[in-house]
Amino acid sequence: MSENISVLGLGLMGTALAASLIEAGHHVTVWNRTPAKADPLVAKGATCAATPAQAVEASPLVIVCLLDYASVLETLEGVPLAGRVVANLTTGRPAEAREMAAWVGERGGDYLDGGIMAVPQMIAHPGALILYSGSQPAFERYEQAFGAMAAARYTGDDPDMAPLLDLAMLTGTYGQMAGSLEALALVRSAKYPLMEFTTELLIPWLNAMAAMLPRWAEEIEAGDYRTDVSNLEINRAGMENLVRAFEEQGVKPDLLLPIKTVIDRRVARGLAHEGLSGLVEEL
Amino acid sequence: MSENISVLGLGLMGTALAASLIEAGHHVTVWNRTPAKADPLVAKGATCAATPAQAVEASPLVIVCLLDYASVLETLEGVPLAGRVVANLTTGRPAEAREMAAWVGERGGDYLDGGIMAVPQMIAHPGALILYSGSQPAFERYEQAFGAMAAARYTGDDPDMAPLLDLAMLTGTYGQMAGSLEALALVRSAKYPLMEFTTELLIPWLNAMAAMLPRWAEEIEAGDYRTDVSNLEINRAGMENLVRAFEEQGVKPDLLLPIKTVIDRRVARGLAHEGLSGLVEEL
Repeated sequence: MSENISVLGLGLMGTALAASLIEAGHHVTVWNRTPAKADPLVAKGATCAATPAQAVEASPLVIVCLLDYASVLETLEGVPLAGRVVANLTTGRPAEAREMAAWVGERGGDYLDGGIMAVPQMIAHPGALILYSGSQPAFERYEQAFGAMAAARYTGDDPDMAPLLDLAMLTGTYGQMAGSLEALALVRSAKYPLMEFTTELLIPWLNAMAAMLPRWAEEIEAGDYRTDVSNLEINRAGMENLVRAFEEQGVKPDLLLPIKTVIDRRVARGLAHEGLSGLVEEL
Repeated sequence: MSENISVLGLGLMGTALAASLIEAGHHVTVWNRTPAKADPLVAKGATCAATPAQAVEASPLVIVCLLDYASVLETLEGVPLAGRVVANLTTGRPAEAREMAAWVGERGGDYLDGGIMAVPQMIAHPGALILYSGSQPAFERYEQAFGAMAAARYTGDDPDMAPLLDLAMLTGTYGQMAGSLEALALVRSAKYPLMEFTTELLIPWLNAMAAMLPRWAEEIEAGDYRTDVSNLEINRAGMENLVRAFEEQGVKPDLLLPIKTVIDRRVARGLAHEGLSGLVEEL
């Protein structure tokens, strides 16, 4: 079904989103503070609106992808939103999503917040995912159109859920990257080929270890951290060994030190028999 | 080919290793400080040696899996090693492996060090891997026998390479676990189902992100950290946003703070245009 959709904000991501919607056959109206950014999209069939109000006027679905939430407020200030679905895909925090949902609601609009799990190059390609939260009727009405940009997943009617899950996935990535940087620094100190280490050893190992996480999810949901695999005492000793090996190789283990600190703290509380998942109680 | 193999040390891991060798049809002699631990293996066909010297006398291949390297030295002190291959699978640091290789060499033995990438339950099952380094002729002579315990991979004639790569893989895992713990704590603060988050969002995302690591390996080998994807300035802003979101949700971002510190330091050096792989230079 062909929809009328407006896209506010034509950075790299907004441009990719608008292009995917045009490609899918929708009638797309675009607006950007610097109008020249719209030219390539107009060449593909988009209409360029002169103001945010004109763009919102043109379509019942308004996709917003700006620098930050302050820019969204500034852009939509004074624009009538009654009868409009605002799908805000701007990167932000859960608290900002809660405020924005209330602000849009006060102005008569339906609100969806979104978290884009992709770089612009991935939009409209397999592997791209956008999480949505907020108005369920609005999501269901436009689910198919959203699917043109990326796989669309609804995560509940709390508007802050999509940005929260987005940040949580990013958090997992930063941890994985920190561990991988330390691993690569250690391997470099021994002059072992980094590409061979990465593709043949590290990546298969990380993927195998990630498969243990559902068990952690279960343990945390149950608040039961007993383990028969690798308790905190074993991890405490292992971590001490690891840090000493880093020192002997002349590599700083800085990115790993806080997990050592938290393990030590938990062991000092008399919980050496528990598994690693119990560390969540220290956060 | 059926070999004569001795196994010193019958903790959970040593017992699993010895059992897999008996199962594969080898003539296995075992020794343990507490002899009763040998009983289940003797029932399967192993011979129990009364002393380490008798165990070493019995077989040209001696697999050692004790608590630590100090225990290995104590156990082998005064035992003739001429004509023996000592495959030391005890967990230790690269520096300890270097010392042990010299010590065994002085006593006429050939030395292999090993890093076991598996828990005891995984031994002789798919997915288990043991890294070896040290004497290449010794590895080649016994490669097939080693294969009964776990996939066997030779990583070079520096005896410290196997334990170093073992520790590096463990390092990657600790980072991944730290990030996942923070992610789970954040998601728990919003009462989203942890199992759904883990299996449907976090794990596929971590696996997709790990696929970017070969590019990092390339960049680090080349010392060229320029990027057109996500530079340090973008990551600095993203990390600030992340830490603020943690505070707003009442969750401590402690395990992520050092990567933020290192990003900030690198940006302060004027390298905001570089990618994350360049952080390795700060370690």
